[in-house]
Amino acid sequence: MDDIPFNYLLGLAGTVAFAVTAVLAVSSKGIDIFGATVLGVITAIGGGTLRDIIIDVPVFWSSDLAYIWVAIAASLVAFFAQNLFLRKEIYKLMLYLDALGVALFAVQATQKAWHYEFGLPLAPVILGVLTAIGGGLIRDVLAGRKTLLMSSEIYAIPVLLGCSVYAVVLNYAPEYMQISAAICGLIIFLFRAAAIRWNLSMPDMLVIHAKQ
Amino acid sequence: MDDIPFNYLLGLAGTVAFAVTAVLAVSSKGIDIFGATVLGVITAIGGGTLRDIIIDVPVFWSSDLAYIWVAIAASLVAFFAQNLFLRKEIYKLMLYLDALGVALFAVQATQKAWHYEFGLPLAPVILGVLTAIGGGLIRDVLAGRKTLLMSSEIYAIPVLLGCSVYAVVLNYAPEYMQISAAICGLIIFLFRAAAIRWNLSMPDMLVIHAKQ
Amino acid sequence: MDDIPFNYLLGLAGTVAFAVTAVLAVSSKGIDIFGATVLGVITAIGGGTLRDIIIDVPVFWSSDLAYIWVAIAASLVAFFAQNLFLRKEIYKLMLYLDALGVALFAVQATQKAWHYEFGLPLAPVILGVLTAIGGGLIRDVLAGRKTLLMSSEIYAIPVLLGCSVYAVVLNYAPEYMQISAAICGLIIFLFRAAAIRWNLSMPDMLVIHAKQ
Repeated sequence: MDDIPFNYLLGLAGTVAFAVTAVLAVSSKGIDIFGATVLGVITAIGGGTLRDIIIDVPVFWSSDLAYIWVAIAASLVAFFAQNLFLRKEIYKLMLYLDALGVALFAVQATQKAWHYEFGLPLAPVILGVLTAIGGGLIRDVLAGRKTLLMSSEIYAIPVLLGCSVYAVVLNYAPEYMQISAAICGLIIFLFRAAAIRWNLSMPDMLVIHAKQ
Repeated sequence: MDDIPFNYLLGLAGTVAFAVTAVLAVSSKGIDIFGATVLGVITAIGGGTLRDIIIDVPVFWSSDLAYIWVAIAASLVAFFAQNLFLRKEIYKLMLYLDALGVALFAVQATQKAWHYEFGLPLAPVILGVLTAIGGGLIRDVLAGRKTLLMSSEIYAIPVLLGCSVYAVVLNYAPEYMQISAAICGLIIFLFRAAAIRWNLSMPDMLVIHAKQ
Repeated sequence: MDDIPFNYLLGLAGTVAFAVTAVLAVSSKGIDIFGATVLGVITAIGGGTLRDIIIDVPVFWSSDLAYIWVAIAASLVAFFAQNLFLRKEIYKLMLYLDALGVALFAVQATQKAWHYEFGLPLAPVILGVLTAIGGGLIRDVLAGRKTLLMSSEIYAIPVLLGCSVYAVVLNYAPEYMQISAAICGLIIFLFRAAAIRWNLSMPDMLVIHAKQ
């Protein structure tokens, strides 16, 4: 994936955040160390795994196990130091790191799908979104939690926006690939960070409310 | 998949029906426009995607995005015009179109698996059923709904019957492939339509009832 | 997979046990013959299917349908003879056969991933665990049951232990592949059998309890 080292470090930081927030999310339902670690790892690598299976290329972690080792370590730390990570400022930090991971993984996924000319121009956007939220969806399903598709939190919309802008640039002005990757990642991160900071949710006209 | 144009149009009609019925099904639990569209698209293309991953051929929508565009458009229309689609006669129409889609996708899937000589003669039948119900299963799991495997509605049994008959013909009388595809599709559609029309469910001797 | 006939028979016995225990597990929620059979088959072959898709090799049952036929037959027998299988001694027997299947499938999966040099040395262990528990996870999700990740039963830990020991041997002393496969399988089976026999669960220090 032509990662420059800085991106690689960002990716590992995102992996840590995905695993830690996963363990914190599922621990309130009661869980043992095995279940917590499995769910942490699935959250961290599940989306990218689905992407690679759909594109039909080797799954990314088969040639670089660092992502899995880091996810295992982060899950174990989060399991034992749960109270530390639930402290308000550290939990907030994890949410922002999670947003960073989401932004990075989404843009990388769109780029990867584009590189393989997979279903241009729509499929790379779909795979960007899938990579960002797929792991979390599997986690919630396995843990018996409501998935984010059923909440009106602003989580995937920034990803959809950023990946769409990126796909437009790749289609019409591919010479700006590098700079637009950074900008689209930033769009996703800032939009998601704003949603965390101000607790944004979908405007009411875009929500169908549950029949009680 | 050697679609003749008529089959292609049928496929798009089925896609519309899958997406629309999905949005209507999940909207009662409360959902936003993003979640509804994702679940509409997954319902429409999820089964075929699973089929292609298992056979290990390129997923069908990577070379023809029309299915996804149509599923997105249909989901959005269903989201905003929910009350229209919930009107009794239109909802019924959607159910019958859904049955048409089920019949078409199942027969096509059996044919595709057979074409790749994938696990003959049993696997094509299994992939026919998986293609027909897989998208709906993923939808229900992600939406926190009871899946159709846990209900005694007659939904998959017509598919199983039609695909089995089709596999027998392909095995013993492959020269009748074209005509038997049409007949088996019709068997599935009519049996499913009868189940909708008369609210059929599994005979009691084939059901284990819940322990209360 | 270089099965010797004895292993092959063990594999079929494990398949029977997976399917039967699956049908018994889901039948208490109420289910029809189609749902029960689908869930029985998925439980029996789901984990190995996920493994093969991730390694990107043909799914094992596409070249040997015996596993599926046996799973279908066992599911149907369990469906109709539910009361027989729920008799205490027979149910216990099924649990031990299930443990045998888990042990065999896990070791075989680690071996298969190692054979394809897939993400050595960590990924074969992960795929061993996934193969052993993947089918059961899909079953529970589709049936709306709590997955084993959310329980503190000792089910996957023996698998993790056995596959890890096996991977260490394959890495440092590959000449002992045959004998260590048998030993690691035995470790898994005996540990799991002990957990069944004495109702073992995770020690409290490795469990986070639910917030009520």
